[in-house]
This record gives sequence, structure tokens and C-alpha cells, in this order.
Amino acid sequence: MAETTDSQNLSFILNKPFDVTFAQQPKPELQSPHDVLVAINYTGICGSDVHYWEHGRIGSFVLREPMILGHESAGTIVSVGSAVTSLSVGDRVALEPGTPCRRCTPCLSGHYNLCPLMKFAATPPYGGTLTGFYTSAADFCYKLPSHVTLQEGALLEPLAVAVHIVKQACITPSQSVVVMGAGPVGLLCCAVARAYGATTVVSVDIQPSRLEFARSFAATHTFTPSRVSAVENAAALLEAVDLPAGADAVIDASGAEASVQTSIHVVRRGGLYVQAGMGKPDITFPIVELCVKEVTAKGSFRYGSGDYRLALDLVSSGKVDVEKLITRTVEFRDAEQAFKDVKAGLGIKVLIKGPNEK
Amino acid sequence: MAETTDSQNLSFILNKPFDVTFAQQPKPELQSPHDVLVAINYTGICGSDVHYWEHGRIGSFVLREPMILGHESAGTIVSVGSAVTSLSVGDRVALEPGTPCRRCTPCLSGHYNLCPLMKFAATPPYGGTLTGFYTSAADFCYKLPSHVTLQEGALLEPLAVAVHIVKQACITPSQSVVVMGAGPVGLLCCAVARAYGATTVVSVDIQPSRLEFARSFAATHTFTPSRVSAVENAAALLEAVDLPAGADAVIDASGAEASVQTSIHVVRRGGLYVQAGMGKPDITFPIVELCVKEVTAKGSFRYGSGDYRLALDLVSSGKVDVEKLITRTVEFRDAEQAFKDVKAGLGIKVLIKGPNEK
Amino acid sequence: MAETTDSQNLSFILNKPFDVTFAQQPKPELQSPHDVLVAINYTGICGSDVHYWEHGRIGSFVLREPMILGHESAGTIVSVGSAVTSLSVGDRVALEPGTPCRRCTPCLSGHYNLCPLMKFAATPPYGGTLTGFYTSAADFCYKLPSHVTLQEGALLEPLAVAVHIVKQACITPSQSVVVMGAGPVGLLCCAVARAYGATTVVSVDIQPSRLEFARSFAATHTFTPSRVSAVENAAALLEAVDLPAGADAVIDASGAEASVQTSIHVVRRGGLYVQAGMGKPDITFPIVELCVKEVTAKGSFRYGSGDYRLALDLVSSGKVDVEKLITRTVEFRDAEQAFKDVKAGLGIKVLIKGPNEK
Amino acid sequence: MAETTDSQNLSFILNKPFDVTFAQQPKPELQSPHDVLVAINYTGICGSDVHYWEHGRIGSFVLREPMILGHESAGTIVSVGSAVTSLSVGDRVALEPGTPCRRCTPCLSGHYNLCPLMKFAATPPYGGTLTGFYTSAADFCYKLPSHVTLQEGALLEPLAVAVHIVKQACITPSQSVVVMGAGPVGLLCCAVARAYGATTVVSVDIQPSRLEFARSFAATHTFTPSRVSAVENAAALLEAVDLPAGADAVIDASGAEASVQTSIHVVRRGGLYVQAGMGKPDITFPIVELCVKEVTAKGSFRYGSGDYRLALDLVSSGKVDVEKLITRTVEFRDAEQAFKDVKAGLGIKVLIKGPNEK
Repeated sequence: MAETTDSQNLSFILNKPFDVTFAQQPKPELQSPHDVLVAINYTGICGSDVHYWEHGRIGSFVLREPMILGHESAGTIVSVGSAVTSLSVGDRVALEPGTPCRRCTPCLSGHYNLCPLMKFAATPPYGGTLTGFYTSAADFCYKLPSHVTLQEGALLEPLAVAVHIVKQACITPSQSVVVMGAGPVGLLCCAVARAYGATTVVSVDIQPSRLEFARSFAATHTFTPSRVSAVENAAALLEAVDLPAGADAVIDASGAEASVQTSIHVVRRGGLYVQAGMGKPDITFPIVELCVKEVTAKGSFRYGSGDYRLALDLVSSGKVDVEKLITRTVEFRDAEQAFKDVKAGLGIKVLIKGPNEK
Repeated sequence: MAETTDSQNLSFILNKPFDVTFAQQPKPELQSPHDVLVAINYTGICGSDVHYWEHGRIGSFVLREPMILGHESAGTIVSVGSAVTSLSVGDRVALEPGTPCRRCTPCLSGHYNLCPLMKFAATPPYGGTLTGFYTSAADFCYKLPSHVTLQEGALLEPLAVAVHIVKQACITPSQSVVVMGAGPVGLLCCAVARAYGATTVVSVDIQPSRLEFARSFAATHTFTPSRVSAVENAAALLEAVDLPAGADAVIDASGAEASVQTSIHVVRRGGLYVQAGMGKPDITFPIVELCVKEVTAKGSFRYGSGDYRLALDLVSSGKVDVEKLITRTVEFRDAEQAFKDVKAGLGIKVLIKGPNEK
Repeated sequence: MAETTDSQNLSFILNKPFDVTFAQQPKPELQSPHDVLVAINYTGICGSDVHYWEHGRIGSFVLREPMILGHESAGTIVSVGSAVTSLSVGDRVALEPGTPCRRCTPCLSGHYNLCPLMKFAATPPYGGTLTGFYTSAADFCYKLPSHVTLQEGALLEPLAVAVHIVKQACITPSQSVVVMGAGPVGLLCCAVARAYGATTVVSVDIQPSRLEFARSFAATHTFTPSRVSAVENAAALLEAVDLPAGADAVIDASGAEASVQTSIHVVRRGGLYVQAGMGKPDITFPIVELCVKEVTAKGSFRYGSGDYRLALDLVSSGKVDVEKLITRTVEFRDAEQAFKDVKAGLGIKVLIKGPNEK
Repeated sequence: MAETTDSQNLSFILNKPFDVTFAQQPKPELQSPHDVLVAINYTGICGSDVHYWEHGRIGSFVLREPMILGHESAGTIVSVGSAVTSLSVGDRVALEPGTPCRRCTPCLSGHYNLCPLMKFAATPPYGGTLTGFYTSAADFCYKLPSHVTLQEGALLEPLAVAVHIVKQACITPSQSVVVMGAGPVGLLCCAVARAYGATTVVSVDIQPSRLEFARSFAATHTFTPSRVSAVENAAALLEAVDLPAGADAVIDASGAEASVQTSIHVVRRGGLYVQAGMGKPDITFPIVELCVKEVTAKGSFRYGSGDYRLALDLVSSGKVDVEKLITRTVEFRDAEQAFKDVKAGLGIKVLIKGPNEK
């Protein structure tokens, strides 16, 4: 790592839609004796980063002043607060990029992902991790075993998203799971579902290349929907994978209206549906089908208690090979081009080196 | 009870929409040593009965030949099969009107309401209980204690529907529950939610008279939605009942699109939503709101394991006063007029005496 | 409240078993911007306080230096930290007397009562609340509505213990619950079980006066065990209360070996057992009975997420009348005599006024 | 299969302890249109069979008249009742050897293993499967895919026991599980725990050869307890496998008092304990440890809804290799010697061919 001073903390900053700059920012200081300072080594680009870059907002989160982008990161501890016992300088860690208040009802009841005071990286007004140094609560940093790379560590973020989704789906061994959408999160859901013992894992997408990758990565079956009704697509899917009674669980990782509709017709009586993808805020939904089949439909939002830990264990034990998702790794100075490439759909996952990473 | 012969079993039969007749039917015989024969004393009219009377179908259930209507009944045991030990001739019972196959995966796993082979009274092709004598499995008859009336026994059916809904909503003491719709099932949901310890129970309807009744029956608060957006109605409701973080649970017992939409905006982060009402099969639904708040939405369909038993206990212990819902009781010969009255919205619940009831 | 200075903080201190003194202690300071300072108004005496007074230890918690006793308290806010928004000076609050670390796995997963770093009042080495002023995290103080008294506020502590126990027992409406032991916690378990909808609540104790109180307070039935085997006591109990298939849940709030044994024979197949009382660390236990009936046995330790809040709601709504448990209230200077009286079994619950309480 | 007549149904019959005979019994008839008749191909010997052979009773089940032994069987359908649609003559099936009443509260709520009217093979007064032909309800027969052998089919019985135990233990990916006892059920618990994603699976036994087999079969670690206290054995075990906070779940498949005691000290705060082994009915148990750690202890009894199906899926998918457990297969005429060998501890699992099996 290069020498740096307290005034050197090169960052990739979104000023307004499509207007980004690189600038030195003050090196952050520990806010509490429980904090650590992390030198960022690698950061993945997420769809939400690209969305802010394009639109300057997601839902009620609106960019009002320049903000550092990025939240899928791994780094190296450079200093630790006085109360930190679990980490030491030099430890390589994956960063869980949201810090909850720890004091509200959701936090105290084990659902900190629903904390209304959550400070989440690269979500206005909080800055992200496409920067040299980043401060984190120590308990939100996960020390990587020596055989897990920092690149894999950066991938724990989308994997934790998938872990949370699959937990919501309550999957148990030998069940059948259909995953709508074969982007990074959908692909990782397939892999996590396998780790939970699912024996039929169907990846659904309209892009043949994605389905081909899904098969090589984790799916046992794939399905390409046609331009027919949701009921017809559902029937065709269930026949293709030989699940006449429906799938035990369906996960939507696409946010596409047609996928959601098909999902509710695919899930079995008493089955689980998880809404993970976000698209149009209001869609046409087969509500009577949900009612009469007693489907349980759950939202899934970010990740919570134990999810990052499990994500790390899945990588560490070799059950999920996240490296396969990395299309390429670019220099920090090429961050803007990387955003353009992701927007253009070039590859699955692009990593950006930290500004001090060789 | 009047003398009857085996050829006397007066029944109220739907031939086709709006075409009903009274006719003698063969008195049914026990199908198994586990069965009992029940002389019907009282039958309530349900919205689904009226729907078949008007339309001849509900969803995929289509009237193809004449069918006896009615399924909310209580009666008196007139004979018991050789294997029946729990009931005796003369016992007064509430009738759970659907018999599952007992052998499929849903049945064996405790979810017999999802049995695909369910034989449900007054659901094509199975006849109902607006008849003199009806055969039932003994374990689907619930003996009424002496202080519970047969009229109350007939009301256990909609109460069991409400019990199942409230169980799906996972309500615990001191929680807040919003119930959309103040028809019989919505009203009973309010009462059951109170029995589960809810301290804020909000009944929502557009008819002031229903809300007035709801307050006198079980609701702690009422709310009348306006012709504004779902988001605005939700905000107004939550302000009116002082629940700034949202309601712990929301139950839709209306089936109205606007109610469903408002519900998802009313429920708190991590809260429960239950779809019980059935209206349009596909509606516009705030799916992103469900996702980011991690709402759990469940369908509720009929009733299952333990629901009728609990319904009886709630009546027997005085926790739910179902008699308040009975607007009037009519003679069997007036059954058609009763259907017309219910369709016209006259009163809450109408009971029809059995053909042999004095 | 009397005038006090920073050096005036009269406290009731345990030096070693049976050796207590009153002494001025430094008035505590806020440790964090999230803290509040509370003037203690009332403190109840708990069995664990008496146990420390007699033995100087409970399990692995050993008194090594003088410690302020007391942890069942209500008080009045006298100052608030800069980050506190939920409370103001003058607010009357019940004090949840243990502060967890908020960062360990149990804390982050919603089980802070299992936090290994918990700082619990009057548990070595942490001082208690029989003192003039006490510092607490604001989120562990519960503002009392105007119609709830400070004496009731002090009683929330044992009520929260009972709430946690009853939650562990998963009680739902119309169930049957047997509670072993009719001390304060056992009595409160009866009341909370009623609030959860239990319709058969059996209080079991060997003292007739306690059972008489139990009936007047919350139990629907009482039972006095005999000097016969656990199997015989269980059979007699179940016959007396007409539960041939066993009780849905059994709670041991006695810690007595014979009670635990009887409990496992009383609970039904598939039922719940909760171990709340603590007596001998190792006892003879009917393990095969637990196995073949698939009983679920759970420990219950202190209280956790939502328990204090529910305790307050139960008092505020009038569902549990904790005032009935207060035998008498004594002056702070009479604290030692109060401990002697509790040890002698005089009364149910004794409150001690704070040193500045008139 | 040899030709047989209705009077030819050779059976292995226990008359009284250590007194067995071979005799022709009437070939059974279908009792219901939902039944099938199965020609038995292979039957495994279970510890309970041996226990009846030695003692003539298990708990309250007492041999009062001669009884056919055996209940771990696979066979071939030879006739089907008129209502059977799922099976055909010639199908190879595993037999779930207990038929519940389908009408009691446990049955209707999905817990048929707790049915008080269960008719279980080789449990007095019901005969077992060490016979030529056996009648079963069709839904308790599981058709074997062509790549699953009949020997494997016979092994589904102990595997279903293990499946039920592991379900009770609520194991999820990356958890740690300790299994006390390395007999057939303990070994299968290790394998099922792996299928549920456990990454640390510790097999504990006092016989080195069993532990060696456990490592080759499914355990990631093994541990041999010493003649020290339960607390010391627990500490040594947790240190050996590097679980300082305790194990997520502990399963006792030994029934040994020392194992149960150690288990409660091994499980982590808030962890799961499952009692599956049966030994002395009453043992010394560390009840305060269960209380303060809020351990959940569950019994596990036989198998229930979905367990046999999952057992078959685990074998069919190759996740559990039950064939490794088969020490040898003997002729029907050698059944008594096989019982002697099992009693002597020779091998892990012995199969007995059906009387008509070549």
C-alpha cells in the first residue's frame, strides 16, 4: 500500500446524475472506541450504485449533495479503537456496509436491517466505500481466513443479500426453488439454495447466456419464459421441471412485473414467495391466487443478523464459489468506465481496486 | 323434530343461477364406520352461497348439476357409525363442512384446508347442508356444551374462518391490528384479535352503520377511508389511531383493491398482512413497499387444524358473542327470500331453520 | 424530592453475607450521550437480592467487593444525554436493570438477555438500584403513562420475567397452562398466561394461603401436590382439572425437584415446558418421558426484546393488576428489615422507597 | 419370488423373551381400498427388535401374545386396493411401518407420530414385517426409483428416524452439531446434519472403531469422552473442536446418562438439544444449566410428516450413502442368529431377506 497522509483519501464522488469526480477527502477518524479504520482494497459495483449514478435517487433516498459511491468492499484494518478486541491492524476484512442504531425496536429484536436510523454506505446522505479509507464498527467487519481472497471478500455483500433472501424462503433439504432473474443476486440465490439442500433449483431469465452461466454455476434447471400469460408460463415451467404440485419456494430477483405474476402461479399451495427484486413500485398482482393457495409472500431487504457471517462461511467452506462471478477487476482511476460497462450489461460482476491498491 | 322417513329429506337446491327449488332427496347413509348422521337445525347464509346462487360458480368451481346450498350449520346426531366413540345420538353439534382426504401431503402435514381432494359442502360437485339430514365424519362434528345454542353452533363456521385468519396474522398481546371490511368475517376477525390480546383493533369500512356495529362488537377504533390515494388513506388511518410506525398486522376481509393497497402502506416494517377477502383476481399491488418493509403477506383459506375447536372455545367461554351477529332466523320454506335479503345487504347474518326444525 | 449534591447518593450496600451498610456514594454520571440519570423512587426486593444478602453469590456470580443491592426499580428522570430524544427530565420511568453490549451475536440476533457481556444491576461486579441516583441507557427506561404509578413501575421487573417465561411457553388462546410455584413470578405467570388467552390456568403450591391468593389473582384452578410420586401427582392434577390428554404448557416457577418431575408428566404430547425456577443445579429428571412425548423444554432467563414493553402494556391496559402483589412499602432506612421480612416469607412483594422519596 | 398360496406366509415370531419360532401365518388381506399388499424383500434389525427379543417389553408396550418381529423393511407391491392410484403391482417400495388413526388432534395437526392410536409394526399388539406378506396403507409406502436398491429401501427406516431428529434440531447451514453415540441412528444423524449444511459435525462415542467409521461416513470430527465430570468432558470436547461458545445443536443418540449431562454443557446459549436415545427413564440432569442458557430441549419420537420422503430423497440424490452401514445380509432362516449377532454388537446393520427372497 502506498504511503498516505491524513489529507490523502482519494474518493470517487457522485455530484449529480452522470456527473462523477475523483477528489481527495479527509481521511476519516474513528467515531467510537468500537470502530476500526479500513483501507479499501476492492469494491464491487452494484445495481443500486449504477441507479444512483443514472438517476440520483432510489425511492425516497435522494442525492442532495455530492456522495462517495460504492458499498461492496473488502479492505485491510489500519487502526482499531480502544474497545476493539476482535480485530488487529493488518487483518483482512469484508465490510458490512450499513451500521444500525442498535437501540430501536427492530435493532433490539434482531432485525437491524429494518432500523429506521440505519446509516448505509452510498445511500444519501451517507458516503460509500469507493475511497481510500473507511471507518466501520468493528462488529460489522468480518475477518477473512487466509485462504479467502480480498476479491472474494468484496463479493460477500451480494452473497449476504442472497443469504438473506434464501433464509426468508425457509428452504430445507430436497425442496424445489425457482429463482426469477439470473443477475448476480439471482445467481447467488441459486447457489445459496443449493447450500440449504434444495435439489431442484430453476433459474429463469430471458437471456440465454445468463442461463448457460446459471447452469454452470448452481442451477439444476433453467427456463426461458415466453410472451404468453403468467398462468401459461407457470404451467410450462412446472411441466418442464416436473413439479406438478408447484415449487416449494419462488424467489423473484428480477423486479419484473411478469416474473412476479408468474411466480405466484408457480409456487405450490402453502409455499413461500420472496420479493427481492425491485422494479416498478406498483404492479398487477394475482392476489386471489395468493389467498386460495395460502402462499406466504415476504419481502427481503438487504441483510441482517448472521447473514454476512454465513456468507463468509459459504465462501470459506467452498460451498459457493463467488470468484466465478468476477468478470474483471479494474483500477480505481477507471471507475467511471466500469460504471458505464455495468450499465451496458458487460459481464456479471466488476471489481474496482482501492485507490491505494497495487 | 317431525317424523321422517328415509325418502323424506327436504332440501334447498340450486339448479342454475337464480333458479332454486325445494325437493325431497334420499336421506344420506353413513359412508364409513367413522361417520355420523346429523339432523340439521340451523344454517347461516354465507357470501359464497349467495355468489353461487347469483353466478353458478366461484373461480374454477362451476355448478354443472343441481346442488344443495348451505354450509354453515349446526344439528343433532341421529345415528353414529360403529367406530364412533366421541359422539352419541342426541348430541348437539356444530358441523365443519369440509372433509379432507387425510392422505395427501397437505393433510399429513397438518394443513388439510389445502387438501386438493377436499369435499366441501355446497362447493360443486358436493351438496350442502340446507337439507334435513347430512352425513359427516365424526371428527368434523363438535359437540356443543349445554350453554351454547345451536344458533351459536351454526355461527362457528364464519368464526372458524376468522380464527384461521387471525392465526395467520400471528397476533400476540398488546399488538395493533387493522381489519379492512366490517362484514361478518371482518367483524369476527376483530373479536378474535381481541381474544388474542390485541389492544388496538381498527375496523375499516365505508358504511357508517357497520363501523358503529363494529365498535359495539369488538373494535377499539374505526376508520372510514376517503377517495384519496392508498398512501394518503394509510397515513390518515395511522395518524387517527396514533400508530406512527404502522400496524403490527393488517387483515383484508374485504377483497377490495383499494383496501389491499392501503393495507400494505398501513402495516409496519416487518409486520404481517393477511389476504382473506376475495374480489378481483388480479389487482394493482404496492410490491416494492412489501419488499423494502419486509412485510410478510399470507393468504388465508377456510380453516384447518384446531380452528373449529378454538372457535367453539371462544363462544363457550364468552370471549366472542356471535349471537350479536344474528339479524334474524327464518323458516326453511323462506330460504329463497333470505338469500335475496342477504344479497340486498339487509342485516349481518341470517339463519335458516332446518326443514324439520320447529 | 430532597435537595441533593453530587456527593449525596445514599445507597444500601452489601459488604458480605448478612453485612449491609448505608453509605453515600458518588452520584453517577452519564456514560454516553444515550444515557439518562434516574432518581430512584421505589425498588422491590427480589429473591435473588435476598440470595446475595444471605450467600454472597449466585452460581458463578460471586461478591468480591461491596455492591449496592436492588434491581426492581422505578424512578424519575433528572438528566438526559445529548442524544436522548425519547425522554425528558421529570418523566416517570420503569428501569430495565440490565444493559447488554449490543454488539455480540446474541445481541445482534435479538436475544440480548443471553449477552455474555451483560451489565446487570446488583449482579457482581455491577451495583444495583437501592440508591438515590442511577444511570441507565435511555432505551432501557420505559416512560410510565400518567395512570400507572411508580410502585406499579417497580413491579414491571418481575412482570417482565413472567412475560418472558410465558412467551417461551408459546401460549395461545384457550390453552391449558400449569404453573408450579405461587411466589411472585409464578403468580405473574398465571396472570400473563390469562392475557395470552389461556382458559385453564392451574397454580400449584404447597402453601394453601398462596393458592388462595392465586385464585383471587389469576388462576382458574389450584392444586396442592401430595407426598406421592411425580407420576401420581401428575395423574391427580390432570384428573382434578379435567385434562386427560395433559396440559398444553407447564411452567416451573419453583425450582423444586419434585415440581420439575411432576411437570414433565403433566405436559401433553408435543407440549411445552419452561424451566424458570432455579434450585439445585442437578436433579433427577424423567428424560424418556420427554423423549417419547416429544416435549419441548426451554429455559427462561431474565427478559429480552419487547418484554418490558409488554409488561408495561399489560399493566397500563389493566390486564394485570400488579398492585395486588404489594404487601407493603417501607422507608429506605428500613431496607435491612425488609430483607429479613422477605427471607421470613412475610408477604408477597415488599417495596423500598428511594432515599429521597417522601 | 417363489409361488405362494394364501396359507403360505412364513413369519418370524417372538413367543416370549429369547423364544422365537418360524411359522406359516395367514396371508393378510387388504383392510381398506386405500391399502396395498407388499411382499417383503429385506428387513433390517433395529435395537428395539432386539430389546423385545430380550425383554418382551419396552416401557408400557408389553408382549402378551406371540408377535411377528421386524419393522425396517422394503418390499414389492403384489396387490393394490381399489382406491389406490399412486402405486402398481410390481412397484418396489420402502415401508413406513406405523399407521396413525388420521382423526385425532395430533394426526390432524401434522404430528401423526404422536397419535395415541398408532398401529406400529412389531410393537405389541401389532405384528411386524419379518414375514412374507404385509399390508400397508398406500400412502405409507414410498416407491423406490430404479437406481435405489431394496436394501437401501429397508435402511430408510433408521434414516427417517435420523431425519426427524435433525429436523427437531433445526439445523441450518454452517452450524455446529455434536452427536452423542455412533450407533446406526447416531451415524445417520451425522449424515443428515451434513445434508442440512452443518459444517462441524462431531461424533462422540467410547468405541474407537465406531468413531473411525463415523469419520469415514459423515463426521467432520470425533471425540472420545473420558471418565471425568460432564463439565470437564464438555470443556474438553469444545476445546478439541474449537467451539468456545458451545455447539449450535447437540443430539443424544445414545440414551446414556453421562452423554445427556455432557450434552447440556456442550450446547451454546440459546442452542438446541434433542433427546433421541432412550436408556434409563430417570437420570440426573443439569437443569439450571438448561435454564440460564435458555437451551431448548426436545424429544424426538419415530418420524412424522415428510420424514420418510426426505429420507428417500437423501438416498436417491446420493447425499446419504446408507449402503455403507450394511454389514451383511442373511437368509430368512438365519434370523435368530442375526438377532444374536446384533445383540453381540457384531457390525452396524444386518439385513434379513424376506422368506420368498432368493
